[in-house]
Amino acid sequence: MACYASSFTIFTEGFAGTVEWAVAFIVMTSLSSVAEIDGPRLLERLRALGRVGKDASGALTRLALSDADKAGRDLLVSWLREAGLTVTIDAIGNIFGSWGDFNDQPPVMIGSHIDTVINAGIYDGCYGVLVALSVIETLQQRGTQPSRPVMLAAFTNEEGVRYQPDMMGSLVYAGGYSLELALSAVGTDGSILRDELARIGYAGEIAPGGVRPACYLELHIEQGPVLEAEHYTIGAVDSLQGISWQRLNITGAANHAGTTPIAMRRDAGLAAARVITFLRNEATSSGGTTVATVGTVRFEPNAINIIPSRAVCTVDLRDPDEQRLQAAERRLSRFLAQLAADENVEIEVERLVRFEPVTFDQDLVRRIESAAKARGYPYRRTTSGAGHDAQMMAGICPAAMIFVPSREGISHNPLEHTDEADLMAGANVLLDVVTGLLA
Amino acid sequence: MACYASSFTIFTEGFAGTVEWAVAFIVMTSLSSVAEIDGPRLLERLRALGRVGKDASGALTRLALSDADKAGRDLLVSWLREAGLTVTIDAIGNIFGSWGDFNDQPPVMIGSHIDTVINAGIYDGCYGVLVALSVIETLQQRGTQPSRPVMLAAFTNEEGVRYQPDMMGSLVYAGGYSLELALSAVGTDGSILRDELARIGYAGEIAPGGVRPACYLELHIEQGPVLEAEHYTIGAVDSLQGISWQRLNITGAANHAGTTPIAMRRDAGLAAARVITFLRNEATSSGGTTVATVGTVRFEPNAINIIPSRAVCTVDLRDPDEQRLQAAERRLSRFLAQLAADENVEIEVERLVRFEPVTFDQDLVRRIESAAKARGYPYRRTTSGAGHDAQMMAGICPAAMIFVPSREGISHNPLEHTDEADLMAGANVLLDVVTGLLA
Repeated sequence: MACYASSFTIFTEGFAGTVEWAVAFIVMTSLSSVAEIDGPRLLERLRALGRVGKDASGALTRLALSDADKAGRDLLVSWLREAGLTVTIDAIGNIFGSWGDFNDQPPVMIGSHIDTVINAGIYDGCYGVLVALSVIETLQQRGTQPSRPVMLAAFTNEEGVRYQPDMMGSLVYAGGYSLELALSAVGTDGSILRDELARIGYAGEIAPGGVRPACYLELHIEQGPVLEAEHYTIGAVDSLQGISWQRLNITGAANHAGTTPIAMRRDAGLAAARVITFLRNEATSSGGTTVATVGTVRFEPNAINIIPSRAVCTVDLRDPDEQRLQAAERRLSRFLAQLAADENVEIEVERLVRFEPVTFDQDLVRRIESAAKARGYPYRRTTSGAGHDAQMMAGICPAAMIFVPSREGISHNPLEHTDEADLMAGANVLLDVVTGLLA
Repeated sequence: MACYASSFTIFTEGFAGTVEWAVAFIVMTSLSSVAEIDGPRLLERLRALGRVGKDASGALTRLALSDADKAGRDLLVSWLREAGLTVTIDAIGNIFGSWGDFNDQPPVMIGSHIDTVINAGIYDGCYGVLVALSVIETLQQRGTQPSRPVMLAAFTNEEGVRYQPDMMGSLVYAGGYSLELALSAVGTDGSILRDELARIGYAGEIAPGGVRPACYLELHIEQGPVLEAEHYTIGAVDSLQGISWQRLNITGAANHAGTTPIAMRRDAGLAAARVITFLRNEATSSGGTTVATVGTVRFEPNAINIIPSRAVCTVDLRDPDEQRLQAAERRLSRFLAQLAADENVEIEVERLVRFEPVTFDQDLVRRIESAAKARGYPYRRTTSGAGHDAQMMAGICPAAMIFVPSREGISHNPLEHTDEADLMAGANVLLDVVTGLLA
């Protein structure tokens, strides 16, 4: 209160006649009498959860359904119970914490995931789940009598590092993948998902997707550099890029690097290099809508003086527009056919992942923008370059996402960082949007 | 004899007036009364040596100074002793078999190496050493009284797989590398060369290079596709390409493949791809003199959806002309500087190997051509794209090489193959050249 009174004095002295500032003042004072997100507690929980799964060297790894994941889940569930939420676990291990009576009203669902990649940061996913808990706690403190329940969700295996496909919990929840197939997934360590789920005590009995939410909101770090670079605090995510992952297996012929004339070469490595430069040209000429990445490559026999007989590389192609993404895929396909002929190599294309772009709910996006504007946070509409549980939930209910800046765009890395002020801004926007939805 | 008599009939009937055929006839008849290379014995020894070092799966690996190398050396030495040669081992483990009294006359040295790469063919190196033995045996059978000794050489560690540098035995012999440094080489398995040499019983006491030969001749499979493709049986090798090996360590920044705008990327993998395509353009625009190969590449973190933060690749650049090779190196260097600026990456260049091109002795090359012509073998002058012991020996005496075709240019591979007729042709040319040198 003291803080707001002080602000009031400054505002009245300097900007008394400005309508915009008056509006901001009204919003601020209208909130000043009620509970706000408990920042220190949120940060403390983020750090506490971030310690679960750290190895001796300090690297954080909580792969889905590992012992570390169990420990993280147990900690989360203990917090949900402390907050008086009704905890339910479904058959794919998704964790829900519900507040308020259902009374035939579909809930507002908010959440994300708490599994991590290898050597992860502490914000990816966890931030959205823990803020969801803070939002419910804040509403509880305000004495809110919600018109519909609020349901926190922590979806199983979003990262997809140990078991494929990624975003598995929300995908199964939304009916996009069968429970049976998901439970039968074989991990990179040879484990069966079903066994691991039972082993860590998170094989629930409830069928996934039984509750269809009124809407789904996910708060997440951007995992990209745009918000920071353009000095925005809030991203109102109105779409999510379509993703096309392919693996190229290029076969040429191994021969001596010194004795084989250029014209007689069948250089699989050169062909892979031409794919990489072609894709960069595609992305550049798209004017920023298409992004393309070759993140992995492997040569055989991988000897300094032997022409590569084989090159295996992956293609990550994304665009928020399905037509443009399909067109980019077609151009790549034509290029590969020509390349195989030009370089006398064979190219096998394996499709690994294909997600169509998602357009989020326009009403929810506008609510996010309004909340950011009312709080005075710089915001912009943006597209998500990464996949998120929200894209799966968008298949069964209105959905949208809120992004906060990632320092230098770094994610999936211990250097992942979002400033505390930005963490709080995102939490406040989610709080305000949920508050509005419950009114 | 019957064979030649039959040929005589045909020649006199069909080509009686042709001077060229008359010359061929004279050469053939002059040889018909003396011993020739014992083809079956040569092939039998090639196969016997090719079995030494085969593993359970049938793969042949005789890395320098390994147990398999010892077994191969022991077999060779037993054959040298059977032929009555004086066997000497020098301090770097080079094996010599001498025939004839030295009497202050420098010897004609002929040979190659018997160590192999991993999963090798049976011809690389061994062919030259075993034919050298056959040549001496043939001269012995003919009752030749040589004007100078003939010295067979099997040089240590030509392949350079286990210990660096390659062509070590001949390099030390020619004074291009200190014995002490060579003996101190640390193997890929952590072993010290000096210890392994002693362990297998091939640490001789004679200082390498004590005998400076009158000349050095090396018969070898081409390890490239040119002779076969152009239907030549004999390559009279008049030069050996200069070799420039470099390792590029390219550092960019790892970032999310979906969320990082193209303009903000520092993609080390893209930079590596641009190096590969640049080098191909260099080679193509050289009109066939320069060859360039990127045989190895490694991305970090090598994940499908992460922009590579690091790419490590090697460059193999060769040209038979030193000025052109230097010019190609300078153009690469300028390209890398521009590339680092354009793609916002750092590029460290590590020089791994640099050999200047070698021009072989013109008199020896002409003798090879004459011998091939006299035997009626199609021949051409050629350059060696690979490194050989002959390039080291060329530093201390006149040297040259004889190539025979490699099927499909394949070498360093179990599929390495040269037809028996071509193996015999090469052996006959070496025999005739050595015969001429001893006359």
